[in-house]
Amino acid sequence: MASHLRTHSKSIPCIIIIVIVAFSLLNVTVSTHGLKNELFPEILRDEVVARLHQLGKVSDADGYLERTFLSPGSIRAGTLIRMWMEDAGLTTWVDGLGNVHGRFQPPNAGNKALLIGSHLDTVVDAGMFDGALGIVTAISALKVLNVTGRLRYLRHPVEVIAFSDEEGVRFQSTFLGSAAIAGVLPVSTLQIPDKNGLTVQNVLKENLIETTEENLKRLKYEPDSVLGYIEVHIEQGPVLESIGLPLAVVKGIAGQSRLKVTVKGSQGHAGTVPMSMRQDPMVAAAELIVSLESLCKRPHDFISSDGPDGHCNAFSIKSLAGSLVCTVGEISTWPSASNVIPGQVTFTVDIRTIDDTGREAVIYELSNQMHTICDRRSVSCLMERKHDADAISCDGGLNSQLKTASYAALKRMTGKDIGDVPVLMSGAGHDAMAMSHLTKVGMLFVRCRGGISHSPEEHVLDDDVWAAGLAIHAFLETNL
Amino acid sequence: MASHLRTHSKSIPCIIIIVIVAFSLLNVTVSTHGLKNELFPEILRDEVVARLHQLGKVSDADGYLERTFLSPGSIRAGTLIRMWMEDAGLTTWVDGLGNVHGRFQPPNAGNKALLIGSHLDTVVDAGMFDGALGIVTAISALKVLNVTGRLRYLRHPVEVIAFSDEEGVRFQSTFLGSAAIAGVLPVSTLQIPDKNGLTVQNVLKENLIETTEENLKRLKYEPDSVLGYIEVHIEQGPVLESIGLPLAVVKGIAGQSRLKVTVKGSQGHAGTVPMSMRQDPMVAAAELIVSLESLCKRPHDFISSDGPDGHCNAFSIKSLAGSLVCTVGEISTWPSASNVIPGQVTFTVDIRTIDDTGREAVIYELSNQMHTICDRRSVSCLMERKHDADAISCDGGLNSQLKTASYAALKRMTGKDIGDVPVLMSGAGHDAMAMSHLTKVGMLFVRCRGGISHSPEEHVLDDDVWAAGLAIHAFLETNL
Repeated sequence: MASHLRTHSKSIPCIIIIVIVAFSLLNVTVSTHGLKNELFPEILRDEVVARLHQLGKVSDADGYLERTFLSPGSIRAGTLIRMWMEDAGLTTWVDGLGNVHGRFQPPNAGNKALLIGSHLDTVVDAGMFDGALGIVTAISALKVLNVTGRLRYLRHPVEVIAFSDEEGVRFQSTFLGSAAIAGVLPVSTLQIPDKNGLTVQNVLKENLIETTEENLKRLKYEPDSVLGYIEVHIEQGPVLESIGLPLAVVKGIAGQSRLKVTVKGSQGHAGTVPMSMRQDPMVAAAELIVSLESLCKRPHDFISSDGPDGHCNAFSIKSLAGSLVCTVGEISTWPSASNVIPGQVTFTVDIRTIDDTGREAVIYELSNQMHTICDRRSVSCLMERKHDADAISCDGGLNSQLKTASYAALKRMTGKDIGDVPVLMSGAGHDAMAMSHLTKVGMLFVRCRGGISHSPEEHVLDDDVWAAGLAIHAFLETNL
Repeated sequence: MASHLRTHSKSIPCIIIIVIVAFSLLNVTVSTHGLKNELFPEILRDEVVARLHQLGKVSDADGYLERTFLSPGSIRAGTLIRMWMEDAGLTTWVDGLGNVHGRFQPPNAGNKALLIGSHLDTVVDAGMFDGALGIVTAISALKVLNVTGRLRYLRHPVEVIAFSDEEGVRFQSTFLGSAAIAGVLPVSTLQIPDKNGLTVQNVLKENLIETTEENLKRLKYEPDSVLGYIEVHIEQGPVLESIGLPLAVVKGIAGQSRLKVTVKGSQGHAGTVPMSMRQDPMVAAAELIVSLESLCKRPHDFISSDGPDGHCNAFSIKSLAGSLVCTVGEISTWPSASNVIPGQVTFTVDIRTIDDTGREAVIYELSNQMHTICDRRSVSCLMERKHDADAISCDGGLNSQLKTASYAALKRMTGKDIGDVPVLMSGAGHDAMAMSHLTKVGMLFVRCRGGISHSPEEHVLDDDVWAAGLAIHAFLETNL
């Protein structure tokens, strides 16, 4: 009896939670019953926005948003997402790298599944849309198909994946989740330690996920089993806001080179070395930075069609001009005293473009300019390549379908012809980058206020959230 | 008897020291007896160089040279210098701010004394010529006058002062010693603490120097009692080396403004903001730094004779062009990540010129350029003045006498007409700057290898040391 009582007493909190969850689900279901038109604002706007706010509060930190790979916050976020997936009629599971899956297998469909995803992890002091928007929007679009009875008639299975790691905050290694599914995650990744010395494998084990080098390989999807991958993501840049539209199709994700430039000159007393006798690495670096900007703003003024090794051609010049961005984010002088002409200046250069050949041509030209400037100034310059990643292109077919779906969604929302849906490149990396190793990919960008991301200031208008959901719904309805 | 023994035993080390000192003096005296010509290489080259090496080893640190205000090393250096002053026939004392004085009062001379000095303190990890060269050279020039019997016939008293602080390392306040003698040291200086919380007054007291606000004022020399002040110092710059001459006369010491420039732009993701939409403070700062260099290399291209408030005229443009130096020594970005377009960039600007009006015109023009560049780039820029000090001019008469003396010394040393002794400006501050508040000043610069100073690499050729000593000797012989 005493034992009975103890058990009963322990169960009470669980019962309360289950009742709350059931009530919450009921609530949502009730609201969807009242749909009055095909724009589904209750699900695709109001509920998505409410869920984004709810997910935005699931954090490892007090007062700001932080969810890193398999942290307690990430586990709680995964549980919530899984519940929403089940609410949409999907079968759910968590895989060997902590990715949360929700799949619907229509009874008479083929085997090739469309994957839709984004990431559930965040940076430190994050916004609530980066990653989450793509997951919640996809679930809700499927929920609409479910409540309207269309889901079971899809010609292909569809699977939403909430990837466990894209930001790479905990292990300084991005795309842990999507790279595992794409089969491009090195098995050695399991042994990378976080700052507390816990490895990826340790962290998985803590969460009762036994992943070994052997079964990690089995996480890879068979390319033949996949139709393609699509992802909705906030733009994280200011272009859509500047052109006044909520959606764009993504042409591709830029390749990137990260360089470190070191300029060494002659250190000296700020008061005693005449201007004409200086070998000042600070002024040389400044000239290089100004040159870099000119080069990246107008590559056609500097790079001819017969570039290094015949690499560069008219096509690449054109694509360069539209996608090239170059940034100096860090700079330091040594010895860094206001009354000392620096002996050395070091700065970083981040170069991105969708055109890998063009990127090489830009680096080649930058190197030439550097040597010209440094020779003229009698300082020595060294350019080191610290990181290189090739661009990926989104699939023309998927892009075209996403464009049509976005156009239709916006027309239905506004009642107006909004003209061509813009095609942007993505300068930031996304899970689609890893997934492109497995299958063709397509992406939809959503306008965000001021282009701000990775900040609590990150914001997407409710109606833009709605537009994205409608577009994915239209895409699924038309193409699946 | 026992007491006797103990006393005797305690005295032994003192006796040994006295014997060594006496032997050392005897040694020097013996060598000067063998002078064969009027170039006095034994005193003005060999002994000066030996003494500089000896003084260069008197340090508070193991393995490198460091002597800060009244540190144990400085006290030992002062004792050594005082001994050399006495060897030259001077009467010595230490004043209430730790300056070491050595004076000769010829029997039938007037009351106005010529002061010759430099500083005995050093920076951390210093070279052995900065400051020390001026002290040792002056003592040895007087020693030559003493051993040749000329000292007693000078028409004016002459006093060598080894100033206790010019570098300002310990109390972050330069010219403690010379400013006290010039009467421009604020009495509040006594209460400035060092990093251990000891004030200037505490440190003096530790060394049995009781200085109060009241008797600090009494350290000031009466202007009527002083004929002028001259100082020998290493150039600390590369000009003399580049023109192949050992000596130059100093026209004046540059005035200085230290500015802080803050550029604020729009922080963003390095991959997502197109070049055309950026408000990048880093590139704006780089353009400003390049503009600053052009302005300071060719002020006449930017500043007209009818400058702000009619301040600027043809004369100042000419003097500007010869003396203006501008340096950006520190720069930092925020948030300083290679993949983030900075939100803010801050850098320092050090502007020096002998022409105070021209310096204002340069700052005015720089401010104009800054606003033009920042407006064009839609970034906000702020220029703050952190420190300003006016230039001082060396006295035309003293300069002319120093020039003649240097010319004569170099002609006697080389047997050749070396042409005009160059006239340089000093971009670095010296004790002469403080002393100019008391009396007219003149300075002689000595070539140093590579223009390097504030470093153990600091070096002056033995023959250049000799040239400086000969020039001061010639100056005293001719003008006193």
